[in-house]
Amino acid sequence: MRPHSRLPLLLVLLCGAAFAQVERPTPDSLPSWKDGAPKRAIVDFLRRATDEAGPDFIPRGARLAVFDHDGTLWSEKPAVEGIFVLERVKAKAAKDPAVRSQPAVQALLKQDLAYFEQRGPEAVGELLAVTDAGLSDEQYQAQVRQFLRTARHPTLNVSYLATAYAPMQELLELMRNSGFQTWIVTGGSADFVRTFSQQLYGIPPEQVIGSSLRKELVQQGNRSVVVRTGELLTLDDKAQKPVNISVRMGRRPAVAVGNERSGGDVAMLTYAKGSKGASLQLLIDHDDAKREFSYDEPDGASLAAARAQGFTVVSIQRDWRMVYAAGTRAVGGSGPADNP
Amino acid sequence: MRPHSRLPLLLVLLCGAAFAQVERPTPDSLPSWKDGAPKRAIVDFLRRATDEAGPDFIPRGARLAVFDHDGTLWSEKPAVEGIFVLERVKAKAAKDPAVRSQPAVQALLKQDLAYFEQRGPEAVGELLAVTDAGLSDEQYQAQVRQFLRTARHPTLNVSYLATAYAPMQELLELMRNSGFQTWIVTGGSADFVRTFSQQLYGIPPEQVIGSSLRKELVQQGNRSVVVRTGELLTLDDKAQKPVNISVRMGRRPAVAVGNERSGGDVAMLTYAKGSKGASLQLLIDHDDAKREFSYDEPDGASLAAARAQGFTVVSIQRDWRMVYAAGTRAVGGSGPADNP
Repeated sequence: MRPHSRLPLLLVLLCGAAFAQVERPTPDSLPSWKDGAPKRAIVDFLRRATDEAGPDFIPRGARLAVFDHDGTLWSEKPAVEGIFVLERVKAKAAKDPAVRSQPAVQALLKQDLAYFEQRGPEAVGELLAVTDAGLSDEQYQAQVRQFLRTARHPTLNVSYLATAYAPMQELLELMRNSGFQTWIVTGGSADFVRTFSQQLYGIPPEQVIGSSLRKELVQQGNRSVVVRTGELLTLDDKAQKPVNISVRMGRRPAVAVGNERSGGDVAMLTYAKGSKGASLQLLIDHDDAKREFSYDEPDGASLAAARAQGFTVVSIQRDWRMVYAAGTRAVGGSGPADNP
Repeated sequence: MRPHSRLPLLLVLLCGAAFAQVERPTPDSLPSWKDGAPKRAIVDFLRRATDEAGPDFIPRGARLAVFDHDGTLWSEKPAVEGIFVLERVKAKAAKDPAVRSQPAVQALLKQDLAYFEQRGPEAVGELLAVTDAGLSDEQYQAQVRQFLRTARHPTLNVSYLATAYAPMQELLELMRNSGFQTWIVTGGSADFVRTFSQQLYGIPPEQVIGSSLRKELVQQGNRSVVVRTGELLTLDDKAQKPVNISVRMGRRPAVAVGNERSGGDVAMLTYAKGSKGASLQLLIDHDDAKREFSYDEPDGASLAAARAQGFTVVSIQRDWRMVYAAGTRAVGGSGPADNP
């Protein structure tokens, strides 16, 4: 056999490897996750979902995974977008008595939480109307970028962009390497998260679903521009999450990941659980006061739903080797320690 | 030099070709397009947009192209979804006097066009409420698939799925080979188009934006299901197209393709024209009575906008070598001839 007679076979094998874009999921793909039930459940699910010969195979085009954002992909203490809105409401109120006289602004300045609890989403819409109405997409994005350039996390003393969870960044990448589309479905403003979703999570703006004010088209010179109105279009929380997934994506994802705090993700995880084939639901439990935060949901509904429906609960304390990427501690100095 | 010493180089070259996902656009990539200004404009734009060293380079992640559907990707004579709705309204009205007594249904059965002209989108919503309210996503999809399996185009005598334009299927593929995401932005129902967007155009359901009824989440046994309500959420036409692009995608596409008939795509093309860098807008002119259809917009606004803003007008008669894929004529028998 002449040496080059094996060439075609070699080319097929090597180029075949280049084409086969699905990476075999292994526990090594999740170095920030400790060995435990959640890591095993993830790797096991991905193996089954990508095994063409198995009963749980999901065709490549149908592999959809949705992730909540605050408390699931980055820390939600404090609520970062809340701080962004609060700062801008205060600045506007300082300049303009008409703004100060608005009920939602008065409640905010007086820290009247009852007002917001009573009025719910509408009150959020009232504040967004104060800060955002009339802003074009470009103006809004510029304000978010400016805020994120300088704002620091109050206890970690790092940019909020350094508070993304390293284990979740790994999970997102592993999902994509396994042929899944990764989407964010956030209760926060879609356009807020879109300014950094690619940078932090490898998720393009088009794959972010979230809350939004109504928008309208206006002509500026010979250029048309989309601007925000003062009216809420959708508050993407609870039952509205699966509804918006259906409206925007048109089909049901098999994978959904959320966290406990307000019950905001139960409906989305239940929806994914209703997939016809194999599916995976993860619920992050914030139980790590040392490295992140520890908080419970008042009525415990999310953890109860996890028990009842078989969602996999992820304990930050027990299941994550590290919480943030290494840089966060280095910059923070007093930042939280690892939990080896 | 021993034969296998060239092996590494060969591997690099061949596997490199497999990895380089951007195909150099050439006129040969559009065999159904005649040589002419539109074909040259497309190839020229794609070369510039993908030329990393040039001034018009668009980074890969920012390459977004939006396409209208009816009259742009397939024939809109007749309006296919209109027939789907009409058949189901008639069937419901035949069974149920309460349905027959609804004003929109009465107008439809009496062919009272004035009613629909006067009430506009609301009247469309009234009909969709009759046919779709209470249907789950799965039930709706099953009805669309059932309709498309048996319905035939009245003059071409083929399945509607055979009335996609071959030149546009080529253009969509060339766009994707040039690193562009391709999206459909239709005035029709997003969920209607989603049932065949992958099969006909290589566009997954998530990349279809369109009109929609409001939806809500209901529990069926231990499974949650999204169902349609009778209320219109969005009519995705005219100014609402760029607004919905902004809400759903969060950024402005450089490429927009639409057609003349109602002025429904002018706002979307104008929006794409407002991109910061290089951009491309195509407007399909239905001027081919022999092979497709010939119709004008009453006020000529789309063609006027094309002249004023420099959109590229595509004449079906002059610019397309063939209109439908070969099978359409073969099946139809009496189908339209080529225009070589």
